[in-house]
Amino acid sequence: MTAPSFVAQDPAYEARVRESFAQQRVMATLGVTIARVAPGEVVLALPYRHDLTQQHGYMHAGIVTTIADSACGYAAFTLMPADSNVLSVEFKVNLMAPARGERFEARARVLRAGRTITTCQADVVAFEGGEEKVVATLLGTMMCVPARP
Amino acid sequence: MTAPSFVAQDPAYEARVRESFAQQRVMATLGVTIARVAPGEVVLALPYRHDLTQQHGYMHAGIVTTIADSACGYAAFTLMPADSNVLSVEFKVNLMAPARGERFEARARVLRAGRTITTCQADVVAFEGGEEKVVATLLGTMMCVPARP
Amino acid sequence: MTAPSFVAQDPAYEARVRESFAQQRVMATLGVTIARVAPGEVVLALPYRHDLTQQHGYMHAGIVTTIADSACGYAAFTLMPADSNVLSVEFKVNLMAPARGERFEARARVLRAGRTITTCQADVVAFEGGEEKVVATLLGTMMCVPARP
Amino acid sequence: MTAPSFVAQDPAYEARVRESFAQQRVMATLGVTIARVAPGEVVLALPYRHDLTQQHGYMHAGIVTTIADSACGYAAFTLMPADSNVLSVEFKVNLMAPARGERFEARARVLRAGRTITTCQADVVAFEGGEEKVVATLLGTMMCVPARP
Repeated sequence: MTAPSFVAQDPAYEARVRESFAQQRVMATLGVTIARVAPGEVVLALPYRHDLTQQHGYMHAGIVTTIADSACGYAAFTLMPADSNVLSVEFKVNLMAPARGERFEARARVLRAGRTITTCQADVVAFEGGEEKVVATLLGTMMCVPARP
Repeated sequence: MTAPSFVAQDPAYEARVRESFAQQRVMATLGVTIARVAPGEVVLALPYRHDLTQQHGYMHAGIVTTIADSACGYAAFTLMPADSNVLSVEFKVNLMAPARGERFEARARVLRAGRTITTCQADVVAFEGGEEKVVATLLGTMMCVPARP
Repeated sequence: MTAPSFVAQDPAYEARVRESFAQQRVMATLGVTIARVAPGEVVLALPYRHDLTQQHGYMHAGIVTTIADSACGYAAFTLMPADSNVLSVEFKVNLMAPARGERFEARARVLRAGRTITTCQADVVAFEGGEEKVVATLLGTMMCVPARP
Repeated sequence: MTAPSFVAQDPAYEARVRESFAQQRVMATLGVTIARVAPGEVVLALPYRHDLTQQHGYMHAGIVTTIADSACGYAAFTLMPADSNVLSVEFKVNLMAPARGERFEARARVLRAGRTITTCQADVVAFEGGEEKVVATLLGTMMCVPARP
């Protein structure tokens, strides 16, 4: 089966995602940037940083999760109405290989968009010496809440 | 049912946990410290930091996950043999309330310790104005791998 | 920390749970019964059946999940308003030991009840020769939807 | 990225999967059959049965999970050595739509095969009036254990 294709109900979805992302101060702290925004899809990028590693010198699973969760939240957010906020309800991450590489991408896509609940998945890919490898996958639930005036 | 009580097979378990923790460079970067180490239990502490927040000013779910995952990994590690390493296989996090507060603790405990696979759970508690509240819970699988010589 | 204690907003919560349970035809098919209903808590019971086993003669993980999921759904449902339905959004199950025994209980409790989303956990306990053992734990998200007239 | 392609180390992998499946007595009880076995892939099929439904007349989430979990276990098992057993360590299921239809398939694939731990995902597809729809997805961890002599 091919991936579902989505239409954003808010034509200004990309500006809305970028504005919210700019308010996630942890993203600037970690050095995360937006690589792609499309209806139902967001890719975030993070260069390797020695000060974000676990005990074996690889990126910590929590940092891998941080970019995968935000990518999923914003993938869901592309499909939400203009006056809404997005919250993570829950996610599950399978760590399939050490997060070793020069650069990482979290590639999130919406699996199913509902009025309140959106299911998303993100693969985290490591780039190392010209090769790319999926090191983790996140399956999660995002929730649409009305923006507070 | 009461929580299981565990005996560490390695009497030097606490030093081993603290040494590994000191090598997780992300912990110093985020400001995480060890609050408790006991057989099958680890508590990590993290003060609020504005530069680790999401778009509404609360601690980012990925940061909450980082301390919960590490606390679980080290709770499992307390029960492993002296010449072993611990890896996170997977975890799932339910975010039950905004991570709002002055200080956070991830309180991890082993649910079941096996030779290869250990199941752990961590509650993340937020302290705010003298009150404490569980804001997230993580249920995960940790794996024991022989230390490489 | 002690478990939260809950008050049901619908005084007829128990009758409502029992009525919905009676409509889950799979419960009669598998031989599941209700052992306890209280605000924020439900216990379901299932005797061992050879025709529900996996390849090693233990109860299949999917059957263990069936009772844990329903117990969580109904634990959440005890706290919902009279004119509502409950749906499972997602769950995660850690299988900690083979589901071996004469009888099984899924003991579910609400961790946090929200207006739309309720987080629940269920332990599945096996009874074997006078001993009881937790063989699995489920952490899941339940959703309240208005009953269709 | 395209799906990984796998080679089975045991040329008799299909017979081994079918033999183990035949021993899962719950499969005959529920009416599940094998629709496809290939290296790293298994598809199981289940016709709708009124006696396996939840309170709204759809297939119960636990039954959906039963076929998704077994499909993942056997997808992992195709890649394991001849003298091994497979166990489910954990899984997470997102229920994206009611399991409504005449027939259901659980389509499992290996995401990453390790010596001990294999990560798998299964989509559960409902067939209704000539249409097919993904109603659930399972992301789980399977473990290879040496067969007992």
